[in-house]
Amino acid sequence: MDRMQSKAAVFDSPGLPLRMVDFPVPDPGPGEVLVRIRCATICGSDLHTIFGRRHSPTPSILGHEMVGDIAASGAGRLRDFFGRPLAIGDRVTWSMVWSCGDCYYCDYGLPSKCEHLFKFGHERIGGRRDLTGAYAEYCILPAGTAIFPVPANVPDLVAAPSNCATATVSAVLRNAGSVAGATVLVMGTGMLGLTACAMARAEGAAEVIAVERAPRRRELAWKFGATVLLDPEDSLLESIRAATGGHGVDCILEFAGTPEAGESALPLLRAGGHLVMAGAVFPARPMSVPAEDIVRRLLRVTGVYNYRPEDLGHALRFLSEQMTTYPFEDLIAARYPLSEINTAIGFSESEKPPRTAVFPDWNLCK
Amino acid sequence: MDRMQSKAAVFDSPGLPLRMVDFPVPDPGPGEVLVRIRCATICGSDLHTIFGRRHSPTPSILGHEMVGDIAASGAGRLRDFFGRPLAIGDRVTWSMVWSCGDCYYCDYGLPSKCEHLFKFGHERIGGRRDLTGAYAEYCILPAGTAIFPVPANVPDLVAAPSNCATATVSAVLRNAGSVAGATVLVMGTGMLGLTACAMARAEGAAEVIAVERAPRRRELAWKFGATVLLDPEDSLLESIRAATGGHGVDCILEFAGTPEAGESALPLLRAGGHLVMAGAVFPARPMSVPAEDIVRRLLRVTGVYNYRPEDLGHALRFLSEQMTTYPFEDLIAARYPLSEINTAIGFSESEKPPRTAVFPDWNLCK
Repeated sequence: MDRMQSKAAVFDSPGLPLRMVDFPVPDPGPGEVLVRIRCATICGSDLHTIFGRRHSPTPSILGHEMVGDIAASGAGRLRDFFGRPLAIGDRVTWSMVWSCGDCYYCDYGLPSKCEHLFKFGHERIGGRRDLTGAYAEYCILPAGTAIFPVPANVPDLVAAPSNCATATVSAVLRNAGSVAGATVLVMGTGMLGLTACAMARAEGAAEVIAVERAPRRRELAWKFGATVLLDPEDSLLESIRAATGGHGVDCILEFAGTPEAGESALPLLRAGGHLVMAGAVFPARPMSVPAEDIVRRLLRVTGVYNYRPEDLGHALRFLSEQMTTYPFEDLIAARYPLSEINTAIGFSESEKPPRTAVFPDWNLCK
Repeated sequence: MDRMQSKAAVFDSPGLPLRMVDFPVPDPGPGEVLVRIRCATICGSDLHTIFGRRHSPTPSILGHEMVGDIAASGAGRLRDFFGRPLAIGDRVTWSMVWSCGDCYYCDYGLPSKCEHLFKFGHERIGGRRDLTGAYAEYCILPAGTAIFPVPANVPDLVAAPSNCATATVSAVLRNAGSVAGATVLVMGTGMLGLTACAMARAEGAAEVIAVERAPRRRELAWKFGATVLLDPEDSLLESIRAATGGHGVDCILEFAGTPEAGESALPLLRAGGHLVMAGAVFPARPMSVPAEDIVRRLLRVTGVYNYRPEDLGHALRFLSEQMTTYPFEDLIAARYPLSEINTAIGFSESEKPPRTAVFPDWNLCK
């Protein structure tokens, strides 16, 4: 019998279109799980790689946001992250970051710094981990991958970005601490910022102030729980003071990523307020920060990068519980078959929608 | 009968010596407590005021670090912060910051930002709060002052600075979170830094690395629990990497106060590490901070200014428990009668010892 094949889009170099290649699908080894991908979404970080703004090993199969059905598993018990049984055919997603759970950084609860780290959609082809990117028909999950069943009411389009965007926002909210009753400011309303608006509201924030330069993105925040929209160009400090009785906001969730955003954030906080930064993942000039303001106003700053597996569990529960409250499907601006991945990428790059979806099996696109 | 008088040293202006003045001692009103001061210590911030590096209202009775005996109390029950009875003659200290407990900031656990804030040793003479500075024979505690009995084994010389230096260090350690088993770096080994070395060790820090430019101050850190001493001029990053298996330290407690200290601190942290800043209480150029480093390495920065009353309770318990382990009395370099306050100030300014003590009643100087 012929070995099963998986189509996959291979990225060779910035400037070249991705090319479709057939890969043999290996039998899963002990603890490994083979997933047939239902839907993938295009994350902004992939666009950075494809258009040469960030370096990544090549050739590679990109894409790390995905949902799929378990097609086969190797020797050993098939379990989710919580140890509950899984079965062939279950619809699942999994932590984008694979971590060993047993090194210096894992011991400190920092799986994204694991000494044996592996990230789906970031591996050079030719090693032990071919077929671990999302722009393909199949994905092999190494033993120890933190797998989560997708709640039945969460459609593929919404589940796909959960293991990057939504889980990172869960990590940001975990680091923020309780926002119940708080006035929360969200900087940047792309995929993560809009999700953060909704999650902050779902967790009891009294007010959610969305700050975004681009009018179209900013307006979207109304639908995701924002109670105030502001343009950062528009006397932000005065607006925030007016909106908070002169005190400032309790918490800022920063997804804009520019030094200007970070610098403008601190004066907007009330004394004792907390700035959680997640946007600055690319080189930029340093931020200029008045230390005396941090000390005298008892400010806190926390950096968040990637997430812990339990944050993905939280993200899926959040999406399931809030599916009827927020229009998560509207965040997916367009849908393409995998065979049109280059068109999908071009659309994402030019239109900058929150997300674009890719379906290896076009019959699954509803 | 003549009204009781209290000598007090009045500060009029930078450049002028303090002058001794007799003030009538008022009968304590409802909830007020009259304390006969046993010992006061000269805090660095008073030197900044006296030598014109910081502005403070004048004329005033400076000094906020003090311990004394309860001499009288007004109507109402005489209780400590925890609600336990106090009696005339009890030896006490109290929170340097008086807060209302009922405003926007007090509700957030930020008494040092209280909207009705009052600080001992910072008031202009002539209002309702004469005789609230430490360089005097008597001090009047307004109703609602957070009073703490001083443990019997803590001598006056050690108790006096507890309501500023030691309590602030308690707040820094509270903000740092558990340091059990951690590698803690202390920047600056003046009064606060040395106390922080001892407190971090007492709370279970595995290693305490003291970083200080001045050799004499640095050497003192050996006696206060430091396990490694480093000169910041001396390839700090390489030394820290060598001492921590390349990872960096878990936590930095910053008391140096310069932008250079803050800037040099972040690269010394391990991923997920925590910088607690307490030193930068004076205007300086802004710090230059790489946002990407904060995000990708999941760093945390927390500012601490003053403290909560319970931190003073913690400070007194710490001093009592560790009196035989660390030579806290050695932090007081010299002792003067209150009548020689100007000599005491001159000595403090020129020699920069951790603390200098002043005794209104020289018979109490042991």
